[in-house]
Amino acid sequence: MSTHPMKLLTIIAEALVRERIEKLLAEEGAKGFTVFNVEGHGEGGRRTGEIGEYANVQIEAVVKPEVAARLLDRLQESYFDKYGIIVYETDVRVLRPHKF
Amino acid sequence: MSTHPMKLLTIIAEALVRERIEKLLAEEGAKGFTVFNVEGHGEGGRRTGEIGEYANVQIEAVVKPEVAARLLDRLQESYFDKYGIIVYETDVRVLRPHKF
Amino acid sequence: MSTHPMKLLTIIAEALVRERIEKLLAEEGAKGFTVFNVEGHGEGGRRTGEIGEYANVQIEAVVKPEVAARLLDRLQESYFDKYGIIVYETDVRVLRPHKF
Repeated sequence: MSTHPMKLLTIIAEALVRERIEKLLAEEGAKGFTVFNVEGHGEGGRRTGEIGEYANVQIEAVVKPEVAARLLDRLQESYFDKYGIIVYETDVRVLRPHKF
Repeated sequence: MSTHPMKLLTIIAEALVRERIEKLLAEEGAKGFTVFNVEGHGEGGRRTGEIGEYANVQIEAVVKPEVAARLLDRLQESYFDKYGIIVYETDVRVLRPHKF
Repeated sequence: MSTHPMKLLTIIAEALVRERIEKLLAEEGAKGFTVFNVEGHGEGGRRTGEIGEYANVQIEAVVKPEVAARLLDRLQESYFDKYGIIVYETDVRVLRPHKF
């Protein structure tokens, strides 16, 4: 059985931008994604710069490499400065590439 | 300190097949796994083909590469067509390989 | 757009050691982390050795490789034998390395 390379895109964001990120994923061709309710701890994007603890979501999507690249671009342009979201990508392998 | 290669197997499925997947993991030699309650968004396996949103689980297991291969085979045979589950594997590294 | 290598450190532990692990992450230079409430299934660290099911946390932190190495060392020294925690690292890529 052969496996095929894909990218797992992981986005950690405040709940308030969740819907916009989901819309972006769909626009760029992600066929599915998973949402986790998490506690995010970090420097956040808060004005005061204090370490914050607040309700976040982690959104994960397995996508084709070119979709991951477009999403990274658009997330960087639109959300990084304003909302302090965290994004990273991971190499993963799947069995049925046409599903992604 | 040296680390050792393992596979992280990630399975996203509807809650109704959760127990069967957990049984499969144990049968094939996974020594442990973690279950997350998540929202899955995607094409699903629904008759109508509409984009669905429903309670899913994400199950993660760190296993030896040969265990991952057997699990991918069996999940493909038994669950992919019927239940539209998503499975992918990721290379990870651990400290204590005998634990996996 | 270029991406930069980081390590994702994943720690699965019983809730009772959560605060100590969070403190360790901060001490060694992790700038943020995410906490998931999960069900952990496995051999656990219980006296009786039975397969256990109990409330666990999964803690994830994206950190510089040298921070990951220090954290693995310290987690191994202090927690592995006593608490049966699971730790693994994954190669990931980020856009803004100064954030990690």
